[in-house]
Amino acid sequence: MLSAVRLSISLPLALAFGASGAVAQSVNHAADVSRILASPAFKAAAAQLDREHGRIVDEGIKLTEIPAPPFKEEARAREFQKMLQAAGLPDAKIDEEGNVLALRKGTHGDGKVVVVSAHLDTVFPAATDVKVKHQGSKLYAPGVGDDTMSLSVLLAFVRAMQSANIKTRDDILFVATVGEEGPGDLRGVRHLFTKGQYKNKIKSFFSIESGGVDSITNGGVGSKRYRVTFNGPGGHSFGAFGLVNPMFALGQAASEFSRIQVAASPKTTYSIGVIGGGTSVNSIPLSGWMEVDMRSESMPDLKRVEDRMLKIMQEAAEGENFARSTKEGKITAEAKLIGDRPAGTTDVKTDLAQFAKAAVEAGGYKVSYRWSSTDSNLPMSLGIPALTIGRSAPDRSGRSHSLDEWIDVEKEPMVKAVTTSLSIVLAATGME
Amino acid sequence: MLSAVRLSISLPLALAFGASGAVAQSVNHAADVSRILASPAFKAAAAQLDREHGRIVDEGIKLTEIPAPPFKEEARAREFQKMLQAAGLPDAKIDEEGNVLALRKGTHGDGKVVVVSAHLDTVFPAATDVKVKHQGSKLYAPGVGDDTMSLSVLLAFVRAMQSANIKTRDDILFVATVGEEGPGDLRGVRHLFTKGQYKNKIKSFFSIESGGVDSITNGGVGSKRYRVTFNGPGGHSFGAFGLVNPMFALGQAASEFSRIQVAASPKTTYSIGVIGGGTSVNSIPLSGWMEVDMRSESMPDLKRVEDRMLKIMQEAAEGENFARSTKEGKITAEAKLIGDRPAGTTDVKTDLAQFAKAAVEAGGYKVSYRWSSTDSNLPMSLGIPALTIGRSAPDRSGRSHSLDEWIDVEKEPMVKAVTTSLSIVLAATGME
Repeated sequence: MLSAVRLSISLPLALAFGASGAVAQSVNHAADVSRILASPAFKAAAAQLDREHGRIVDEGIKLTEIPAPPFKEEARAREFQKMLQAAGLPDAKIDEEGNVLALRKGTHGDGKVVVVSAHLDTVFPAATDVKVKHQGSKLYAPGVGDDTMSLSVLLAFVRAMQSANIKTRDDILFVATVGEEGPGDLRGVRHLFTKGQYKNKIKSFFSIESGGVDSITNGGVGSKRYRVTFNGPGGHSFGAFGLVNPMFALGQAASEFSRIQVAASPKTTYSIGVIGGGTSVNSIPLSGWMEVDMRSESMPDLKRVEDRMLKIMQEAAEGENFARSTKEGKITAEAKLIGDRPAGTTDVKTDLAQFAKAAVEAGGYKVSYRWSSTDSNLPMSLGIPALTIGRSAPDRSGRSHSLDEWIDVEKEPMVKAVTTSLSIVLAATGME
Repeated sequence: MLSAVRLSISLPLALAFGASGAVAQSVNHAADVSRILASPAFKAAAAQLDREHGRIVDEGIKLTEIPAPPFKEEARAREFQKMLQAAGLPDAKIDEEGNVLALRKGTHGDGKVVVVSAHLDTVFPAATDVKVKHQGSKLYAPGVGDDTMSLSVLLAFVRAMQSANIKTRDDILFVATVGEEGPGDLRGVRHLFTKGQYKNKIKSFFSIESGGVDSITNGGVGSKRYRVTFNGPGGHSFGAFGLVNPMFALGQAASEFSRIQVAASPKTTYSIGVIGGGTSVNSIPLSGWMEVDMRSESMPDLKRVEDRMLKIMQEAAEGENFARSTKEGKITAEAKLIGDRPAGTTDVKTDLAQFAKAAVEAGGYKVSYRWSSTDSNLPMSLGIPALTIGRSAPDRSGRSHSLDEWIDVEKEPMVKAVTTSLSIVLAATGME
């Protein structure tokens, strides 16, 4: 009864904070986290994470070395499904989109689930060497941190909860998503929330990523991605010299794009990630293209950069058509939207964020809030509380999305971070 | 004797014209061509070319539809070898480099040969659709003109000479070369002149190309080709925003390169033919590259553009290192020479050029001299008389090196041009 009264009092406040989930003034989050950390079951789970450090690392390496380029996560998904089944969730399955899902029932499930997820895919193309290299306690490999070691941590969570017989109020849906990175355009998590069997049944969402556990991502950076193609008539590089060349328009566009000025806050960024076109050195090519990525913490700022980019592309085509002959045809610029991630936020006053903050602080870390572009963007944009949380000690990973990506797996700081990460999940799902 | 005297008189003149072959004032080229054209044997050969028009076209289509990308001419070479054997030169073989060679002995061979060649390769990559499309008397296909139909014309030459029992003074070496186009960098003809069994045994050289028979290429345009790569540290497009991006340097370089001013004469050209780099839209890439082609009728002008291009590349890297952070590493620019074609000329006063001019004029065409970059560059640069000649009527081909390349095979103008082309070869090789 009491709690019902409190809920009715807090309702106007919740509405005041909009769609980011119920704001609960009623719960003492820090006290609840303390209770959990002091419980024999949690201590048993923590002890198991400590004993299993080597296994977490080994399984992370094993999964890292199964390539999982965008749209080609299947081999890794199948292996992860098996590992999740072996970890204690025999019903783990792969959904229509390729996500791996496994439900762990709670004691007082309300028909809704809390998702605890990591992503299967990496940014790296199929041919990338994904062999893990060791250097002291550092592991180097494309994708080892972002986000493969988190998959291994999910497995460790499940094993620890099973062996310590941990009970949570809420049903937990463990998920390994496909398509978190660039070209995937959140296809896995989008399917989960808008098409799959748990559509409308997810009440909150965690994505576990490579970063430090002290850093809580409660802002989803919006992004727009385009493939811009300049087409022209082509021709012989000597015989047809003087005709418009799409590469010159492309170069001019890239150069002008590089001169856009953006504010440091709200953080807004832009990049050219991939470029291509042409078939032989001695031909004026038929086309040249580039893939551009624009992101912002602010939707208006994102729109501003997007509009400018689109204008630059048109001007570059026009400039080339003015500079050289169009007698065989003009340069045209075509911009195709290939990625469109909604922005969103999870209010720091939501239960979800408050539990996360309390657990991180109980672990002895100083919380910082961040904006990023992760699977959490999708639920955030739908008004469903979502956080992307870390599972490593601060500053123990780096060079994400580059071939020299690394993480440090030194035992003590890693186990402490993983344990803290688990405590966030257990606090938010109502460990008994 | 008379001719010996005349030769001794003309010697100082020959020396005055340098290494472009003996200048013969002694021969009445036009009269010799008239004699050939009036001969029953030539008339029989011409009649056969007329009868075989359909076959020439069909064999050209057949060869066009066997892809022959740079470095992958083998399938087409094998087929052409068989066809050449069937045409009457059973000893046709493929040399170490991949060229198809077949010798037709002359009556007074001096141990040296006159090469009559066309090239096997096209500029188009392996996946290109090379199916020939018909539109009236026009054939559309990548490579159909440049230079595949010339291979078919070589076969027709051989059949016509065999069936009309034509005798030439000189040995003729029919050759289908590999590597004429861009990346091949003249590897076929280079092998022929510098390594193969006919090294030092070639006294003059014809390359038969797509253009009008009225146009004689006696100038070999020099070219320099580079693959320029910008390397940088890479990183996450949002997290590492602010780091140097190789694509921005590439864009700036391409844009600045496009602004180079060149004289119309001596003709000097530049182009970006292929561009690439990066692996995912949401990563700052490790590298971006472009392949540039620079050509000139003048070696000093070529050097001037080359020097400027190399400077632009360095400046673009420096500019990017100044514009953004280098804390994870700098942008570097690396320029690799991937093509280096010597320039050269064949003096219009050489016997070779005089016979060609007389035969073209006897065909009723008005001669024009041209510069181009063809297999003839190599012998020209060695001081061996060489010409690239056409085999179609004027303005009956176009859009070379583009996907909508075409030739017009209308019977009467085509047969007339092919016959004239044959008369050039027969005049130069001393038809009896």
